[in-house]
Amino acid sequence: LNNQLKRVVLLSTGDELMSGKIADTNAQWLADRFYTLGLEVAAVLTVGDFRERLVWAWEQAFEMGDLVVSTGGIGPTADDLTTETLAGILGEELRFDEYTAERMRRLFEGMRRPMPENNLKQAWFPESSVIVPNALGTAPGYRVSTEREVRGETVMRHLVVLPGVPREMKRMFDETVIPWVVEQQGDASPPVARTFQTFGMSESALDEAVAEVIPEGAARVSFRASFPKIGVTLLTRGENAEARLEALAATLRERLGGAVYAEGETLMEQAAGEALRARGATVAVAESCSGGLIGSRLTDIPGSSEYFIADFVTYSNAAKRKILGVPAAVLETHGAVSEETVRHMAEGARERTGADIAVATSGIAGPGGGTEERPVGTVCFALATPEGTISRRHQLWGSRDWVKLLTSQIALDWIRRWAKGVDVLESGFRR
Amino acid sequence: LNNQLKRVVLLSTGDELMSGKIADTNAQWLADRFYTLGLEVAAVLTVGDFRERLVWAWEQAFEMGDLVVSTGGIGPTADDLTTETLAGILGEELRFDEYTAERMRRLFEGMRRPMPENNLKQAWFPESSVIVPNALGTAPGYRVSTEREVRGETVMRHLVVLPGVPREMKRMFDETVIPWVVEQQGDASPPVARTFQTFGMSESALDEAVAEVIPEGAARVSFRASFPKIGVTLLTRGENAEARLEALAATLRERLGGAVYAEGETLMEQAAGEALRARGATVAVAESCSGGLIGSRLTDIPGSSEYFIADFVTYSNAAKRKILGVPAAVLETHGAVSEETVRHMAEGARERTGADIAVATSGIAGPGGGTEERPVGTVCFALATPEGTISRRHQLWGSRDWVKLLTSQIALDWIRRWAKGVDVLESGFRR
Repeated sequence: LNNQLKRVVLLSTGDELMSGKIADTNAQWLADRFYTLGLEVAAVLTVGDFRERLVWAWEQAFEMGDLVVSTGGIGPTADDLTTETLAGILGEELRFDEYTAERMRRLFEGMRRPMPENNLKQAWFPESSVIVPNALGTAPGYRVSTEREVRGETVMRHLVVLPGVPREMKRMFDETVIPWVVEQQGDASPPVARTFQTFGMSESALDEAVAEVIPEGAARVSFRASFPKIGVTLLTRGENAEARLEALAATLRERLGGAVYAEGETLMEQAAGEALRARGATVAVAESCSGGLIGSRLTDIPGSSEYFIADFVTYSNAAKRKILGVPAAVLETHGAVSEETVRHMAEGARERTGADIAVATSGIAGPGGGTEERPVGTVCFALATPEGTISRRHQLWGSRDWVKLLTSQIALDWIRRWAKGVDVLESGFRR
Repeated sequence: LNNQLKRVVLLSTGDELMSGKIADTNAQWLADRFYTLGLEVAAVLTVGDFRERLVWAWEQAFEMGDLVVSTGGIGPTADDLTTETLAGILGEELRFDEYTAERMRRLFEGMRRPMPENNLKQAWFPESSVIVPNALGTAPGYRVSTEREVRGETVMRHLVVLPGVPREMKRMFDETVIPWVVEQQGDASPPVARTFQTFGMSESALDEAVAEVIPEGAARVSFRASFPKIGVTLLTRGENAEARLEALAATLRERLGGAVYAEGETLMEQAAGEALRARGATVAVAESCSGGLIGSRLTDIPGSSEYFIADFVTYSNAAKRKILGVPAAVLETHGAVSEETVRHMAEGARERTGADIAVATSGIAGPGGGTEERPVGTVCFALATPEGTISRRHQLWGSRDWVKLLTSQIALDWIRRWAKGVDVLESGFRR
């Protein structure tokens, strides 16, 4: 009997998916995880809360996948049909799990709320199931391994049932399902992965750079673009995986250079903040076209008050003059979108706040306002520091949102680079 | 032969969906559209670019749905297998559409780029298909109506094939597929819909309010929550649909009152901007915990420079004092998160910019910084206007992101309400 996991089918259930009320982000997240684990997802089946459709979906899933992962349909209400339906398909009775019931009762006691009787429905499981604990909610999941007849052959099928709430599902998957999957894969050493967050190279340029330094077959490489950053993940397994991966990562780190702004799951605003904190420096911002986005991103990070002092969003020329002291003559001669103006903005912000450094931007986010000389997407950047002021003009592209986002990304990268002691002017996105 | 459309199956294809690289937002969008049209989506089937899996998915879809809508798999490359595979299933030859080919050639000429030969693949269609034009890209879609044997019966099946690029798919669906679906539904008058954008009521409160004023069966009601706003759509069809809907909308508008901030697909920042423009007024902002988000949202709207002058993000107490002139004694006595402080912030911002009004916020976004007296989520708001200054303290909730977003939503609603002449202090989210 073949016990190896190869193909996965994802099963998403819930009426809210069928009416377009929510997007099936669980399927994408799980597909990403399985991709990293080296398992193929053969299909995603999504159905509403109807018994006959669930039966159809499970039957199909058993045909196609060695492993079926289902999300949703295990809540306390009448339309949560997964467990009952599945027990029928498996030809198993349901068993009541006293431990689960007791834990639910205690959770409700802790919240000082009476437990609705229907909650106990979540303490019933197919007889042969192994419970998958849920640290963040009342409904545990479970898994079953069973023999089935598929096209006249007896085969092994594994199924995992998880709740639909993404936060709970993800934690249960990472904590309990992944270790079990890795064990089933029969590999003594678990897979090891390293992710680089990059900014400034296109996906095809990254692809070429990776191909140059990572020998074919040495690691599984995947890219995850989430504009304006692209994550590159190297994954390997087997003997000495850690050491081999570290060697590969070192080569790639060197090849990508300043384009790597962080490792792991890190946003640019986090990387900039961590670099400032490490250097013990404070920052001020002066914005025009980005309209407050740089300040907003910096302050998305808890504890940012340690290094962030103030942001001046001077949208009008009068505001640039009055609030930041940009000389009228500079605005008149060079215009609001000029390196001269942003240098004055940065210096004005630095003086007025006493921050160690100040970054400033001014540009044309569009769709209107472009000229022959300064088309939409023209953005000027300046950084005032104790060592002096530097500036650069960039030609960005895309919709208003994209120009704003790219502008904030470059400004944050300038902050990070300065705090890290890396060449600031090298930053920026090359198409 | 039953020709009526009742049940829809969505078919999403593409390897990027199976590796978790992208989420299937097309399925959600289509499910939402069909829900509004009153058609039931029975299942969503998602498979990668493999011939045998596509065959399986189409066969299943024909079993379950009168109408099958497929997205993806009709591009120019070798892994785009939908058309070829589908022609095989339908038992049809492919035909070459000269008009489509000519249009593609001209599009490439217009871009002064040579057309890759494989692009012509997109000019081949199953023989009986009706082409669905694509205004935004090179690959048109198509639809086919055909008789099939399903469980021993001859039934009518309709299928629509669209590209996977969301922007193109959506436009094609709205422009060409919806009118055809409505025609198939055999209703002389097309459905008419009205959407209200609300802020300040929970979904269950909205549900109750709607139930009070909209008689059962008078209109199809749907809610779409996209924090912090909730859209309520009324849809009706048949005789006098326009007039009946208008009467229902008028009752609902009155019942919901100030909670409705706009009609149609409008964001709060748009509504606030339009109200300012209509009143010919300008605005300045002073922010603390929201960190620039209010300014960033205001400037997301093209043309916002007409009414937005400046935003002061004064994160530290020193910045509040030096930049906005909040008296040290006020900060000391009442604290940074107090109605007294935000009143000074708003007045300082208004004076320094000459704007007609200025809105100010200061609060504790969390996760740290809360106290017994001012827990995380405490946010104070003030609005300085020619008629004087008003202020209010709100107790918000949720993660740091939520507190920031809710803060910006309330501030924008204050701007909108002032510009519209609606009671400002009534704004805010009640759980």
